[in-house]
Amino acid sequence: MESALIAELRRRIGPHPLVRLGLGDDAAVLRMAAVDECAVTVDMLMDGVDFHLRDADPRRVGRKALAANLSDLAAMATRPLAGVVALALPRAGAMDLAVALYDGMLPLAAKYGLAIAGGDTNSWDGPLAVSITLFGAVTSRGPLTRRGARPGDRIVVTGAFGGSILGRHFDFEPRVDEALILAERYTLHAGIDVSDGLSIDLGRLCQESSCGAEVEVQRIPIHDDAHRLAERLADGSTPLDHALADGEDFELVLAVPPDEADRMLAEQPLAVPLTVIGRFVDRPGLWRVEGGIAVPLAARGYEHHFT
Amino acid sequence: MESALIAELRRRIGPHPLVRLGLGDDAAVLRMAAVDECAVTVDMLMDGVDFHLRDADPRRVGRKALAANLSDLAAMATRPLAGVVALALPRAGAMDLAVALYDGMLPLAAKYGLAIAGGDTNSWDGPLAVSITLFGAVTSRGPLTRRGARPGDRIVVTGAFGGSILGRHFDFEPRVDEALILAERYTLHAGIDVSDGLSIDLGRLCQESSCGAEVEVQRIPIHDDAHRLAERLADGSTPLDHALADGEDFELVLAVPPDEADRMLAEQPLAVPLTVIGRFVDRPGLWRVEGGIAVPLAARGYEHHFT
Repeated sequence: MESALIAELRRRIGPHPLVRLGLGDDAAVLRMAAVDECAVTVDMLMDGVDFHLRDADPRRVGRKALAANLSDLAAMATRPLAGVVALALPRAGAMDLAVALYDGMLPLAAKYGLAIAGGDTNSWDGPLAVSITLFGAVTSRGPLTRRGARPGDRIVVTGAFGGSILGRHFDFEPRVDEALILAERYTLHAGIDVSDGLSIDLGRLCQESSCGAEVEVQRIPIHDDAHRLAERLADGSTPLDHALADGEDFELVLAVPPDEADRMLAEQPLAVPLTVIGRFVDRPGLWRVEGGIAVPLAARGYEHHFT
Repeated sequence: MESALIAELRRRIGPHPLVRLGLGDDAAVLRMAAVDECAVTVDMLMDGVDFHLRDADPRRVGRKALAANLSDLAAMATRPLAGVVALALPRAGAMDLAVALYDGMLPLAAKYGLAIAGGDTNSWDGPLAVSITLFGAVTSRGPLTRRGARPGDRIVVTGAFGGSILGRHFDFEPRVDEALILAERYTLHAGIDVSDGLSIDLGRLCQESSCGAEVEVQRIPIHDDAHRLAERLADGSTPLDHALADGEDFELVLAVPPDEADRMLAEQPLAVPLTVIGRFVDRPGLWRVEGGIAVPLAARGYEHHFT
């Protein structure tokens, strides 16, 4: 990393009780004596895939990169501890871009008490790539995995879905606090965050849990953005299509035992609404239930298609 | 990450005692109860900068990416624990490329007992970028930082320098075991690994330690590759120039108290030679000492130049 950038970042990134040694050495050193189990997640966001730098304020890009990673910690119901940031910067304007990316990240890190412990900043002839690795403390409730959904569990979601491309995909709030509150107060069997699409991510949770899911699609909370997007596109897609497949909602999808789900819904302990949109079932696959009839529901959303 | 790739990687990456939860969830979960302090390092390697994919076996690229990160853990004299890997893959042939990169990484990870705990694999229209984050356990000796060099300390190096571009920059052995042995048996004040160049990295160590260094350049162990490269280039550069500036030697540069350095040199406890190439001094900057005369020594090597 260029020394001028390190100096600038050191100035901006203050001390943190978790960090014994921060930027400027071969590695950061974190105090982990109080952490028994540590969740680790890495997510790389790339120009042309996760954002278009041409059209986006780089501070929003930086914020999004960190928020998407925080959402993964939320999906595990873990408490954010620290992170490191690797940047591949286009050569022209690299310094300003790096500073702007950190400008977007640092307030969000501060909000969640996350230490930015280190980084690697490089320039090249390629487009911008931002790779962030975060560590979270697993709470005494254990990690919330994708593996524990059981037939009969209710599918509970936070918030509303669809149309995030209109702006929410940058400015969403990762459900870190919500996940910790829910894991603390209720029995949760499994969880995932919706990054690629409600249906595709629900399908992933089912696959890891070796079960299926029946979705009462009319119960899915559809975001105003999904309505606006369907109207704007006028391509025959419905707001529900967008809710099922758009992705980057960064809401939580949870498997909750029926009685706990009832209690959760009655108490509504979060600022964001909780909704039951169906239940997990023995029969594998995703099923769309309307008027008591179940038909296959396509798992749609964003996938990196490899050849 | 594409599910076919996850399945393939899960097959190749076996269980590891440190990993409670590996690939396939929103985050990995590591058992850290035995770790008081954790070193964290991230290093992103990019096509056209750190390798040329056009001319390189992707397995060597994968190995190099991991080895460069291990070298950072070595520079801190920490024991490798676990890592996560983020890939930005060119779309065409992405699956084969990802598998080949892991083929290069996994044997090296196994050699050092490192758990590959998770990853993020993406495709895009840009070139290959490999970002690896590693965690290492700080030993009871504490982390070896860049900060502790004191005037009078000897500059001790492992191995020999220069001409790594002829192949060693891919196939070097990170000095993980060497660093742990030295930290265990001797008092070390500071350390760094040579990634960008012997002189520039020594300069960084001096800067963090607020001191200078006098280098007896005739003592620098010059690698055969440096001789070969100077001969091949025939551009007036000397083998010593290459030893001082080429970088990617991934050898250790250590600040060692004089009596400890004497003992270390007499005992030569490693398979690779240890050499004293000078001493740290009060006067800031790098100095080249020949025949008792000190003249400024330019800190040369690879730097990401930002504009």
